[in-house]
Amino acid sequence: MGRRIYLEDVPLEEAWTRFTRALTEAGLDAPFPGEWVPLEQALGRVTAEPIWARLSVPPYAAAAMDGFAVRARDTAGATETQPRVLPVPPGPDGIGACYVDTGDPLPPWADAVVPVEQVQFDGEAPERATRITLYQPVPPWANVRPVAEDIAAAELVLPANHRLRPVDLGVIAACGYATVPVRRQPRVAILPTGTELIPPEEAAARGVRPGELIEFNSLVLAAQVREWGGLPTRFPIVPDDFERLLEATREAARTHDLVLINAGSSAGSEDFTARVVSTLGTLLVHGVAVRPGHPVILGILRVDGRSVPVIGVPGFPVSAALTGEIFVEPLLARWLGLPPRRRPRLDAVLTRKLLSPLGDEEWVRVTVGRVGGRYVAAPLSRGAGVLSSLVRADGILRIPRFVEGYDQGETVAVELYTDPEAIEGTILAIGSHDMALDLMAQFLAERWPGRRLRSANAGSLGGLIALRRGECHLAGTHLLDPESGEYNLPYVRRYLAGVPVVVVTLAHREQGLIVAPGNPKGIRDLRDLARPDVRFVNRQRGAGTRVLLDYSLQRLGIDPASIPGYDREELTHLAVAAAVASGRADVGLGIRAAAAAMGLDFLPLALERYDLVIPQDLYEDPWFRPLRELLHDSRFRAAVAALPGYDVRAMGVEVARLGP
Amino acid sequence: MGRRIYLEDVPLEEAWTRFTRALTEAGLDAPFPGEWVPLEQALGRVTAEPIWARLSVPPYAAAAMDGFAVRARDTAGATETQPRVLPVPPGPDGIGACYVDTGDPLPPWADAVVPVEQVQFDGEAPERATRITLYQPVPPWANVRPVAEDIAAAELVLPANHRLRPVDLGVIAACGYATVPVRRQPRVAILPTGTELIPPEEAAARGVRPGELIEFNSLVLAAQVREWGGLPTRFPIVPDDFERLLEATREAARTHDLVLINAGSSAGSEDFTARVVSTLGTLLVHGVAVRPGHPVILGILRVDGRSVPVIGVPGFPVSAALTGEIFVEPLLARWLGLPPRRRPRLDAVLTRKLLSPLGDEEWVRVTVGRVGGRYVAAPLSRGAGVLSSLVRADGILRIPRFVEGYDQGETVAVELYTDPEAIEGTILAIGSHDMALDLMAQFLAERWPGRRLRSANAGSLGGLIALRRGECHLAGTHLLDPESGEYNLPYVRRYLAGVPVVVVTLAHREQGLIVAPGNPKGIRDLRDLARPDVRFVNRQRGAGTRVLLDYSLQRLGIDPASIPGYDREELTHLAVAAAVASGRADVGLGIRAAAAAMGLDFLPLALERYDLVIPQDLYEDPWFRPLRELLHDSRFRAAVAALPGYDVRAMGVEVARLGP
Repeated sequence: MGRRIYLEDVPLEEAWTRFTRALTEAGLDAPFPGEWVPLEQALGRVTAEPIWARLSVPPYAAAAMDGFAVRARDTAGATETQPRVLPVPPGPDGIGACYVDTGDPLPPWADAVVPVEQVQFDGEAPERATRITLYQPVPPWANVRPVAEDIAAAELVLPANHRLRPVDLGVIAACGYATVPVRRQPRVAILPTGTELIPPEEAAARGVRPGELIEFNSLVLAAQVREWGGLPTRFPIVPDDFERLLEATREAARTHDLVLINAGSSAGSEDFTARVVSTLGTLLVHGVAVRPGHPVILGILRVDGRSVPVIGVPGFPVSAALTGEIFVEPLLARWLGLPPRRRPRLDAVLTRKLLSPLGDEEWVRVTVGRVGGRYVAAPLSRGAGVLSSLVRADGILRIPRFVEGYDQGETVAVELYTDPEAIEGTILAIGSHDMALDLMAQFLAERWPGRRLRSANAGSLGGLIALRRGECHLAGTHLLDPESGEYNLPYVRRYLAGVPVVVVTLAHREQGLIVAPGNPKGIRDLRDLARPDVRFVNRQRGAGTRVLLDYSLQRLGIDPASIPGYDREELTHLAVAAAVASGRADVGLGIRAAAAAMGLDFLPLALERYDLVIPQDLYEDPWFRPLRELLHDSRFRAAVAALPGYDVRAMGVEVARLGP
Repeated sequence: MGRRIYLEDVPLEEAWTRFTRALTEAGLDAPFPGEWVPLEQALGRVTAEPIWARLSVPPYAAAAMDGFAVRARDTAGATETQPRVLPVPPGPDGIGACYVDTGDPLPPWADAVVPVEQVQFDGEAPERATRITLYQPVPPWANVRPVAEDIAAAELVLPANHRLRPVDLGVIAACGYATVPVRRQPRVAILPTGTELIPPEEAAARGVRPGELIEFNSLVLAAQVREWGGLPTRFPIVPDDFERLLEATREAARTHDLVLINAGSSAGSEDFTARVVSTLGTLLVHGVAVRPGHPVILGILRVDGRSVPVIGVPGFPVSAALTGEIFVEPLLARWLGLPPRRRPRLDAVLTRKLLSPLGDEEWVRVTVGRVGGRYVAAPLSRGAGVLSSLVRADGILRIPRFVEGYDQGETVAVELYTDPEAIEGTILAIGSHDMALDLMAQFLAERWPGRRLRSANAGSLGGLIALRRGECHLAGTHLLDPESGEYNLPYVRRYLAGVPVVVVTLAHREQGLIVAPGNPKGIRDLRDLARPDVRFVNRQRGAGTRVLLDYSLQRLGIDPASIPGYDREELTHLAVAAAVASGRADVGLGIRAAAAAMGLDFLPLALERYDLVIPQDLYEDPWFRPLRELLHDSRFRAAVAALPGYDVRAMGVEVARLGP
């Protein structure tokens, strides 16, 4: 009887040190030996030894232009008025010229080339000329490409540990090679484990049943390995059976340089990885003080006398991907003789306060945009299961151990995933989530390659506040003012007082009650929310929908406390709809489109106006024009109008220009 | 009878406009349609349409930790002193708990999960517990992963025109896909033409005969196409035969989206490309005002009713590679729906004055290093044939039309090939070329991945001047002072007066006369250089070897003007040796190692000291330590000692510390 504590809490640096020390002892830390591959297949491979030129380039003196090979001294004194005439080919006295094409070897007797444009010749073609006339002299070696102008035999062409680019292949071929010695690519085995896992193909074919999880981590890990120069092998899913995992691991270790065991879950009863590692070799680390990624396992397997490193990769998708970056990438780099990859960094202003557990190093995903001449970083979901946050991430902010976090407005260093060019083209929207904004992002990327619209959900109010702080380019908002019954403008006046902004309508949307198909609980209106048999799902404070709800409840004299589930908050319309669809709630307030997307019923309550709030100077800026154009683009309007409950008649209308 | 002018001189922008207009008219400028490929093969491909989630992720509410599913209200009031005890599974009254692993669906009756670490349970394993004890309450929905926490069905997951990264594949699989719609890869045909061309395999097997050229441009172009997302096909070399080139081109156009015809030479009699293009379609441009790359051809072929763009790629390797970057890359990007690639830029100080022809835009290759807190750009060879300059280039400096060049010391914008991290790790050496420096570059890259030694050849004197200007980290020099007969120090005192530097010896080298094997001309010493039947090849002014020559000639009273070939200058020892090896010169002055590398005979004249001159602060800097360590590394010393004529006994010796 006892409380289970199953994980160590090894700091990242120490975990890495233990791992590399063990690798060194096993003789596994040196760059891999070379193999000779045809140049045609060598792009992106890494040289295993220096490349010394076997031939000089060019191997002989050659004509650098099309023209006539001559002896410079025979052209001396030629002028427009007193031209020199030379026979082709040279006469017995050795005086004369002969035609050469660019690249042709220079005849032994010649020491210069007169470009064809500078001479007059008889006959139709210079190739058939018998006499040429020169109007100016040429110096010795003019228009001659000397031997070894490019590369001299025995010269160092490329050092070892160089990743081969297209031009490198050309130079290597030019100096006498048809093959090149490159480092063998590390073979990496990826073993997904977990009885609950099903392959994507199966899920795509028949959907997912409760208790099942789609196995996609091995896709991500394999792609990472390939990107980093390794050769991945995805093993079939191994069910939760110690013996079978043991066998699969042994099998993988026989034929690979590195084994990744991806646990179906972080530390559950299914997790046999640690036991397998200690059975087949040495368990070095079980649990690293970094999040996401905590339950990482590091070890060395010994199979058939070979030592093979093994990494137990956590099951949560974000943890899995980051474990790849933290442990797999540097190991592959070492084996390939490359420096561990370092991402471009930039300093950005943090849009939200971040608190982080003292004991762990935390990797926070952020989206980055350039707003008003400075970079801002908006933290994304920190859930280890939220892979989409990694997809939307432009970079990573590391919060070291023993740092408890950063304040809103603080300048932090971001390691970029996205290339800086793309960030310059990013329009950053913070505010209420809306499906028309998703469409806008799609149309923008399609019509203006290189431009992006990123939206971070912070609710309508959060958006206005972020805009006031200069943390985004625009805010999407649908806030009803209880006093005036007017949408958005009162809030803009209050929260952006004195800031010159344009308020433009994106669309009107139908708000209402989202209920299960057929409305089994027979819900009619908001009064039913107070029924004890009805479970409600709410939106977060500051969300326009939440404001609408509280406003309506107040008018109806309904006490929020009397509503079961009032305290359960979701961040988007779709999340609310999803909660109802899954049967965990009976009703939620949201837009018709969300209900329709999930095949749910909908009871309309109100038509609300969703506006975009944009600083005036930006609104006028050419950089912003694509977004303005979209608001008047017929295809985009049609696409939005096609969303259930959306009315685009007012799209693009400037509701107001506020500010001084 | 007439002077041949065969090329237009179309400005780059106009050439591109003509080309794209024709593409638009032919309906060839739109992004390619999509094809569905398995996720496992989709890394690096570009989405052809937006990806909307088919499933919510997770599709059901799930336990976020290993622990016990409970109803939050049943845990209310639990404390360390007054714990709550719950039966497993729940009793008839519905009160109780049940064990769940991370990822397990939450039972319908439960609304929270208590982590296993926070409870006490009976039995060995929590899975088999029949009773749990709680010491604190849990709020509703604690440790529960709500439906759609990651992605809600019908949400936009990825827009079109997005290049797929590893994490993207995971998210796409997670929301219900096993395949993904990506843009078809453009098929690009590459046709090398030229009777003088031989494949690299043949050259590697039997060497190159006069008049032959190794065909490697198609290797470079194919690798570029692959890197830019296309599918290249390398066609066999087409000899100079109009009909055969016509046929090959027609054949290529039938099965490809773009045809590249790589002329064996720039505009010689072999160049049928223009005629082939006008025969099979429309010749749009023949000659672009950009160098290198001038004789580019742009056109549209019409074959079997299909229109296929064609680019005539110049034969000079640098022109060929740059033509790929200027014309092929943006076209492929357009077809893939990607923005044309833009390279990172940085401002750097130019180390040499650059003059450029007014009429053309010129692309100058530069190597870049960070010296004393600022970036410096050292121009490399501008020859269109010098592919190694493109290999050594860290970036490109564009000199626009109608700009006649830039001054030494001017700040210019460089478009980087090399990732900025690598530039931070670069040690930049300017001065006299030396083979031990080549070895040093190789050892550095091998021993310290990420560190690089770049040497630009400017002669010993040029190096000292560059060092004084703060344009390099160190200068390699071997300068004999005629008055004192002393090496290097007098010059350092004169050219670096007041600059605190350390002078360290790299090695002593044997200088002498390089002659053909068996010394056919029976050369004995410098006096023979004045013989009319002896052709000499010289080094450039400022080269240590040149100083040694002039010094020796003066002492012997030999008039340089009497030496045939005295005015012919080469930039390196190896180039001098190559000139002798090719029979274009009978004798040159240089080091024994160069003679040995080319299998030539050598008549020793002097033993000279080759020193490295390094600013003192840099010499003490940890960043510089790798290079200092190498000077005392036994393997490196052995490698240098193995070079013929090298003496390493003084390697690493600090000859002097000069300056205030």
